[in-house]
Amino acid sequence: MRSVDTLIELFTKFPGIGPRQAKRFVYFLLGKNGTFTKELITALSSLSKQMRVCPSCYRFFYRENTESSECNICLDTHREKSYLLVVGGNIDLENIEKSGYWHGYYFVLGGNIPILEKNPEQRVRLRELKAKVEKEGKTGTLKEIVLALSTTPDGEHTASYVKGALEPIAAQYGIKISMLGRGLSTGAEIEYSDNETIKNALQNRH
Amino acid sequence: MRSVDTLIELFTKFPGIGPRQAKRFVYFLLGKNGTFTKELITALSSLSKQMRVCPSCYRFFYRENTESSECNICLDTHREKSYLLVVGGNIDLENIEKSGYWHGYYFVLGGNIPILEKNPEQRVRLRELKAKVEKEGKTGTLKEIVLALSTTPDGEHTASYVKGALEPIAAQYGIKISMLGRGLSTGAEIEYSDNETIKNALQNRH
Amino acid sequence: MRSVDTLIELFTKFPGIGPRQAKRFVYFLLGKNGTFTKELITALSSLSKQMRVCPSCYRFFYRENTESSECNICLDTHREKSYLLVVGGNIDLENIEKSGYWHGYYFVLGGNIPILEKNPEQRVRLRELKAKVEKEGKTGTLKEIVLALSTTPDGEHTASYVKGALEPIAAQYGIKISMLGRGLSTGAEIEYSDNETIKNALQNRH
Amino acid sequence: MRSVDTLIELFTKFPGIGPRQAKRFVYFLLGKNGTFTKELITALSSLSKQMRVCPSCYRFFYRENTESSECNICLDTHREKSYLLVVGGNIDLENIEKSGYWHGYYFVLGGNIPILEKNPEQRVRLRELKAKVEKEGKTGTLKEIVLALSTTPDGEHTASYVKGALEPIAAQYGIKISMLGRGLSTGAEIEYSDNETIKNALQNRH
Repeated sequence: MRSVDTLIELFTKFPGIGPRQAKRFVYFLLGKNGTFTKELITALSSLSKQMRVCPSCYRFFYRENTESSECNICLDTHREKSYLLVVGGNIDLENIEKSGYWHGYYFVLGGNIPILEKNPEQRVRLRELKAKVEKEGKTGTLKEIVLALSTTPDGEHTASYVKGALEPIAAQYGIKISMLGRGLSTGAEIEYSDNETIKNALQNRH
Repeated sequence: MRSVDTLIELFTKFPGIGPRQAKRFVYFLLGKNGTFTKELITALSSLSKQMRVCPSCYRFFYRENTESSECNICLDTHREKSYLLVVGGNIDLENIEKSGYWHGYYFVLGGNIPILEKNPEQRVRLRELKAKVEKEGKTGTLKEIVLALSTTPDGEHTASYVKGALEPIAAQYGIKISMLGRGLSTGAEIEYSDNETIKNALQNRH
Repeated sequence: MRSVDTLIELFTKFPGIGPRQAKRFVYFLLGKNGTFTKELITALSSLSKQMRVCPSCYRFFYRENTESSECNICLDTHREKSYLLVVGGNIDLENIEKSGYWHGYYFVLGGNIPILEKNPEQRVRLRELKAKVEKEGKTGTLKEIVLALSTTPDGEHTASYVKGALEPIAAQYGIKISMLGRGLSTGAEIEYSDNETIKNALQNRH
Repeated sequence: MRSVDTLIELFTKFPGIGPRQAKRFVYFLLGKNGTFTKELITALSSLSKQMRVCPSCYRFFYRENTESSECNICLDTHREKSYLLVVGGNIDLENIEKSGYWHGYYFVLGGNIPILEKNPEQRVRLRELKAKVEKEGKTGTLKEIVLALSTTPDGEHTASYVKGALEPIAAQYGIKISMLGRGLSTGAEIEYSDNETIKNALQNRH
């Protein structure tokens, strides 16, 4: 197969990229001088060497500390050990971390469980999460697990499934499982808010 | 001025209608038989006769009870007298009422206070609201005022201004002023949530 | 039925207006003082009195010349009698007239013929158009009929149907039937142009 | 600089890609197994080796015929030698070629000349185009140059500039310079057509 067709095929797998834009990418690269593509190849080659998955929270991180296999967040002892925030993906984690309002640790599920999924455990790192909770539960460190998932149908299904799966262990070790607060997000208009949001906004009034 | 031009000009003042659509409205009316326009005129003529503003909550309502000047919500004695929800407009009130989660009374401000407005009291019924709170405060009926405004910049400015204006009276009569709960609204994605929403979603976790 | 509900129902029939916007219209009118609604009623009442359908071209026009039943365009003797432009609706006619590039006369079909329509003649003024062509054909005035219809599927179907219906009369009186030129419209990009447009743009190159 | 930041920076230069999507690309690649990135690197590496610029029409093509430096279109002797179509970019050429309505040869300008550009000749291959026209003019082969540029402001400016630059040579060798036909493109609506399009549609009626 010609490299140009292979490239179009590969770019089409990128998130949000259709065949037309994939083709534009290829012509863009052809139009650039060789240096650009070389830089791209170099960066792609070192990506997997420089980045690794943290064995504790499963986020991708830059491997700078050669002595430890864990990421800088998991190694940060100033964080609150009793709190674990479960997110769907790396970008969710980054967005919450950037806000500066979370001081506990994280766990990256690695995806969502679609509503009709027959093998939910293949979609997310539930086994790893249960093992982590079990381990930290035993030592009495963990007090609360916050499920920080999107309030989309898939996100809500995932939250409900994960909550159900964790409840026995959580109950055993006295760990609270909580969900993110519902209500009006920034920019919400009363006129267009759905009943669920109105209910939560009224209940959580302050 | 020709009626066709007057009509285009009037329709252009309707919310969300530009000159092109205003013109389409006129041709639409011309294309319809006379009955349609006659029905429209009849309905417009009786609108102001049939509808009136409630002197208690300032919402528009259908004048069916000829003995009372107040609207059916204000006359409903099964509602919780201690709670007053302040909304921007009639459609906001309708949306909250439709949700079925509010059992107290309402007050329609009649608009928002834009951030740079020099005469805020001309934009909303603040004098009327203060009078109502004063009156119900004296009798000891009112316990909480909920400011149910949109979380847009203008809505937040209005909430903050109204809160400041009500605080002295509220303090005098021991009335709580609360805001709607902030957090993730339905369909919100963690990846795209702003810091303010994340902060509230974390604080209001449950 | 309450006037407010009747109004919402009537506004929902306006082109491009859904129930939510119809309701906003009603609250907008309620929020306006009585003068606005009165002006609207006055303009609506005089609309049908002031406007009439030209019995020659079937466009709506302002009835200022009380001596003639025809519109000012049809009465304008400086126009080229040999050319008749057939359009779908009044707004199409206005847009072409505003361009200043058409110096002949017009005929308003009053709609499009949807592709699966069983009674095409009920959708457009085909009988009236044939009568007009017949009449002007007999006197030898008419030399060309330009079908100025949109190049949407329905527009193309209408053009093709009307062309077929006119051909026998046109042939009898030696009248040419033409279609608007196809090619690149303003702002068209070569990259996104469909095959039909490319074909026409190549054929009509100049 | 870390490869992840370099990659985000490089992806942000891709057409239509902002920083947020660039970051999603990186996490997408991290989430894929190593095979995907390896395939991407392989395809990128061979792209510049397998593709080359045709020295005659300046399009990118797959270098399969090792004996000739020209592309398959330029080598195709069944094409009409007298016709040269000048396009802005490779994707424009592909779209026209795919339509099957052009049987002459091509020349890729390699871009547009923005309206306020001070050095127009640095933006497009005008020197190369003039040399080609000069050469083919001398032999008497070339009869018509079709400027197939978008009808956007930049495209029209480019067409006008290139036409002016070619006119002396074209006049010398009796070569016609033509523009693509203007008119209604597929799906155009009369109501929304601008004056220029209406003028052309009327002039090019058929």
